[in-house]
Amino acid sequence: MKAVRREPVDTTPLWIMRQAGRYLPEYQQIRKGKTFLEFCKNPDLAAEATLSAREVLGVDAAILFADLPTILEPLGFGLDYQPGPVIDNPFRIGSTIDDVRELEDVGEMGYVFDTVRKVRKGLPDDIPLIGFAGSPFTLASYAIEGSGSKHYIHVKTLMYSAPELWHEFSSRLARAITKYLIAQLNAGCQCVQLFDSWAGCLGPNDYREFVLPHLKSVIEQVSPHGPVINFLTGNPALLPLCAEAGGEVIGLDWRVDLADGWKMVGHDRAVQGNLEPVVLFAELPTIEARAKAVLDAAAGRPGHIFNLGHGVMPGMNPDHVKALVEIVHEHGSKTNAASDFA
Amino acid sequence: MKAVRREPVDTTPLWIMRQAGRYLPEYQQIRKGKTFLEFCKNPDLAAEATLSAREVLGVDAAILFADLPTILEPLGFGLDYQPGPVIDNPFRIGSTIDDVRELEDVGEMGYVFDTVRKVRKGLPDDIPLIGFAGSPFTLASYAIEGSGSKHYIHVKTLMYSAPELWHEFSSRLARAITKYLIAQLNAGCQCVQLFDSWAGCLGPNDYREFVLPHLKSVIEQVSPHGPVINFLTGNPALLPLCAEAGGEVIGLDWRVDLADGWKMVGHDRAVQGNLEPVVLFAELPTIEARAKAVLDAAAGRPGHIFNLGHGVMPGMNPDHVKALVEIVHEHGSKTNAASDFA
Repeated sequence: MKAVRREPVDTTPLWIMRQAGRYLPEYQQIRKGKTFLEFCKNPDLAAEATLSAREVLGVDAAILFADLPTILEPLGFGLDYQPGPVIDNPFRIGSTIDDVRELEDVGEMGYVFDTVRKVRKGLPDDIPLIGFAGSPFTLASYAIEGSGSKHYIHVKTLMYSAPELWHEFSSRLARAITKYLIAQLNAGCQCVQLFDSWAGCLGPNDYREFVLPHLKSVIEQVSPHGPVINFLTGNPALLPLCAEAGGEVIGLDWRVDLADGWKMVGHDRAVQGNLEPVVLFAELPTIEARAKAVLDAAAGRPGHIFNLGHGVMPGMNPDHVKALVEIVHEHGSKTNAASDFA
Repeated sequence: MKAVRREPVDTTPLWIMRQAGRYLPEYQQIRKGKTFLEFCKNPDLAAEATLSAREVLGVDAAILFADLPTILEPLGFGLDYQPGPVIDNPFRIGSTIDDVRELEDVGEMGYVFDTVRKVRKGLPDDIPLIGFAGSPFTLASYAIEGSGSKHYIHVKTLMYSAPELWHEFSSRLARAITKYLIAQLNAGCQCVQLFDSWAGCLGPNDYREFVLPHLKSVIEQVSPHGPVINFLTGNPALLPLCAEAGGEVIGLDWRVDLADGWKMVGHDRAVQGNLEPVVLFAELPTIEARAKAVLDAAAGRPGHIFNLGHGVMPGMNPDHVKALVEIVHEHGSKTNAASDFA
């Protein structure tokens, strides 16, 4: 939390996107015999997955175990995992805004807030719990494409051919996300991350017109309740606009040098990232060299939260992830006040 | 060709990546009853597809009908289309450089050069024919992943865990690509494009170490035989390094504003691009507005070749593609000499 505020720290803090996941035997054990949705909606199990990953890895924050598209259910979308998320009734050209419910009662996501409370109880006081949600664009993409997409043809066609409907739909999503994140903070999260996992498929003009206003609206309303990490992946050319949308911390993916990315978003902002995730499939000396290169790029500037540039992947060796945590703690920077960098 | 050399032109020239493809009824007709590989290897049919697309659309250049991974066959890789390209014997950790043949005789790709000669005969003298090949990185990715990939885990793991083998393999690919492109130019192409369709999955440090030397080696050797368009997609942060690798023209994808991208690669270089391809699924007024925005970003500077930011897609309306050609010809810039922009 000090790094979020760009205050001096003893060493660079880190957590790892998707740190509680399939690559961990502890997770596989907890999840056994449950479908993914059953698991997400069971606060006891989701809390256990959250806590055990934090403990096993020794990272400096817990991240809520949940998934991005579940917030679409109370908006009227049918969600299934096959095993990736699939929407039964995608929102397409020809749909109207009345096909989507307004999220009046965020209590419909109560299982998530129950998980937050359970995790918070089991977590040491000095370890923050990070909540999260998909950004309006990324959730719109799930709802419109209906499943994984390579070219985002349905999403972009709706944007270009029905821009008013796009904005109505994105506003509705933005209002739901805002309520959802504030409720996570109220339930006990110290910080929340917005995942714009798919906005990298856009050029800057499209991002400015179709993404930025809705993302900005969410962040403006959530920030007074707790700090926001605004994470974008897939296109470094969008970083200045992503920073314009707001967030106490900007999450960087691995496609940009951390030093360059930090410059692009401005040194008056904390950043998170950005080790190439596939490096964790390599041997330990490579992991060490690459992690140090990320730390070097941060140059001891206050406000760096170490993370991968995207999530940890199934099949990765948990020992490599643990080794990364030790490397960052050992070689991380004891940073001074921001004023030393003025 | 004047635009390639940044000389004054009467209006912005254009061609369209994958202009001869499945979206065209003329292509479907020519291709009927043939597998994709049979079609590629039949110079009469491949030439007809090349020529008919050029004529139907009225674009300013023909692009050879061929596919990127076919050059892998004479290197010893088994190639099949299911319907995307699949390699029977992918190159992986544990493979040795002896598992890959050195391309001694480029005549093994003779069907491509026969196609070039046939197209050149059927093409008006003032219409250039563009040849092409995959860049060393993109071909290595095909050979290593063996099929489409989301995270390039095998590619990156081989890079990180066996860097010497990576460089040996990439050098071998670079030598084959060099011979292949020079032979295309010798057979009658006026220009060639290198497609780095997948390098956008890398960060700048990886690109500098693992991609740039091999790409540079190809371009240095091919350029004296004819101009090279160096096209990269997926990561605008790589553009300065892509320009460093060389090429008379740098191809820009849609993830960056053309004006910004041109600045990044330097105004002493021609650029190609970069309309968001999915715009062609929208209605004509949108296509017109967006095409004009790209032309505006070029600002009449000499050395702009209009293109999409990536290839045209199956299912697109051929009338929209034809309309784009007319829009660009009508609204394109009569450019002056480069010295006016000094």
